[in-house]
Amino acid sequence: MEPIKDFEGLAAHLKTLDRPRKVAVVCATDDHSVEAISRALSDGFAHFILVGPHSVPGGVMDGYKGAIESVGFDLTPDEAAAKAVEIVHDGQADVLMKGLINTDNLLRAVLNKEHGLLPKGKVLTHIALVEMPAQDKLLFFSDAAVIPSPNLEQREAIVRYMADAIRRLGGQSPRIALINCTEKVNDKFPVTIDYMTICDMARNGEFGADTIVDGPMDVRTACDREAAAIKGIDSPVNGNADGLIFPEIQSGNTFYKTITYFAGARLAGLLMGTMAPVVLTSRGDAATAKFDSLALACLLCGDSDTTSANLE
Amino acid sequence: MEPIKDFEGLAAHLKTLDRPRKVAVVCATDDHSVEAISRALSDGFAHFILVGPHSVPGGVMDGYKGAIESVGFDLTPDEAAAKAVEIVHDGQADVLMKGLINTDNLLRAVLNKEHGLLPKGKVLTHIALVEMPAQDKLLFFSDAAVIPSPNLEQREAIVRYMADAIRRLGGQSPRIALINCTEKVNDKFPVTIDYMTICDMARNGEFGADTIVDGPMDVRTACDREAAAIKGIDSPVNGNADGLIFPEIQSGNTFYKTITYFAGARLAGLLMGTMAPVVLTSRGDAATAKFDSLALACLLCGDSDTTSANLE
Repeated sequence: MEPIKDFEGLAAHLKTLDRPRKVAVVCATDDHSVEAISRALSDGFAHFILVGPHSVPGGVMDGYKGAIESVGFDLTPDEAAAKAVEIVHDGQADVLMKGLINTDNLLRAVLNKEHGLLPKGKVLTHIALVEMPAQDKLLFFSDAAVIPSPNLEQREAIVRYMADAIRRLGGQSPRIALINCTEKVNDKFPVTIDYMTICDMARNGEFGADTIVDGPMDVRTACDREAAAIKGIDSPVNGNADGLIFPEIQSGNTFYKTITYFAGARLAGLLMGTMAPVVLTSRGDAATAKFDSLALACLLCGDSDTTSANLE
Repeated sequence: MEPIKDFEGLAAHLKTLDRPRKVAVVCATDDHSVEAISRALSDGFAHFILVGPHSVPGGVMDGYKGAIESVGFDLTPDEAAAKAVEIVHDGQADVLMKGLINTDNLLRAVLNKEHGLLPKGKVLTHIALVEMPAQDKLLFFSDAAVIPSPNLEQREAIVRYMADAIRRLGGQSPRIALINCTEKVNDKFPVTIDYMTICDMARNGEFGADTIVDGPMDVRTACDREAAAIKGIDSPVNGNADGLIFPEIQSGNTFYKTITYFAGARLAGLLMGTMAPVVLTSRGDAATAKFDSLALACLLCGDSDTTSANLE
């Protein structure tokens, strides 16, 4: 499999797989959700269970019989969230998607200790994928939205999720950069001590024999070959990262907001760590963001071993 | 005075002032320094004292007699740094500029407790100014390089420096955004508690009657009118910030590196808080960065009241 280089390539790849994923959508009454659902049906990579009220046109419902169904049209948003979570929990859906419901309310259902989707001991995090004019490939980054300041265990989990995600995009040797404002390991920045441990683990093959993790390094050293060369730092990650892991949420969120406004970024984002990826894009995001996030969720859900086999 | 909208406008404005600033340069042997010096001489807004070795061509030295002099050509870099700091300390120069000397070595001279340039009780910080294709004006931000995690007193000082800097660019009512990953004041993010205090101080006129400070808000809400409108947050700063203050160095540095690589940014940066602004750009920066930083330093140095009077 050739590495997927942009979002059009991602959708095209999903089309070829011929294994539609089942997506439970909570309150699909917003235009972005309806648009994403219609396009995914037409591409054929997802089937849908619409939970709670929806405004998917009758023509679409009829045109894709068997690929789309509606459940509990009269439910309140909170009831719809609980129902959709139950459907995913019971294994009847592979992805959970947010429609017109408050993010906090959806998360309450997702994180419910008894009936929710976060297995005990799993780390909940946000992973985003971005396509930018200045970059000739897709780039993952985390965490821009969930964990304020990850501890070592959470950082390890994020590296694991990201290495798997990069492999599913067709990247043979995931190259992950651990971001910090300087390249020095220094207890003035305790995150760099965590990074040293993670780099050791990577060298011991704990994230997969082919996964290369390096840092601390800044965003530019991670992505810009020329800047990396000027700094004279030699590493397979420098200037060529497939994924960036930020030290804490402030820098992750700054990267997210900066590239979407100043760098013409096209961006998808997901919650990971849950039993199924959760698509959480909100009204402020671009119209394509929901579709791209849905496509990414359909690539990342399900058994990773099956997908790895596909790569060989 | 019309607000200065880009770096060409900044240089053009300095030309009209007819009050050349005196700049002490440490080891002007790198091409970027020589280029910046030659252009500033030709524009007429700076005079130079070259301290230590330099490679400014004889033709330039002869052509601008009275506007450029050389001191201690045989000094070592450390000696040249100490000498240049002494010159600034004695009031014979208004700006200190780094040539080909290690940043740490120059900073050691600048921060020397007995002979250095940081008055007791003043806050040392880094302020940057950026021009980007996606933005129709210049934007200040801080701190991307010096203070790992500012305390309340340091944040107040940064707001003061920035409000003054914005006014000197011709901004009548400086609009400063306090950056955070969400818009909520929440003790999960202690910086937002500091922000509340700073916003109160701003309302009490402590940063100048015309200075508007608002936050917490994210980078996009601060700069993108459309995003601010979608979020429904109403403030004169939203979507129209003149300056961004980051919660800590990781997010400030991420913004810096991201805009320079992904958003085609043209950028100037200075150390502030010292008796004179310090131009610290390094080899990795673009060739224009040194000239732009020098121009910015010449605008920001000296008595701010004189400049304020110019604005009225």
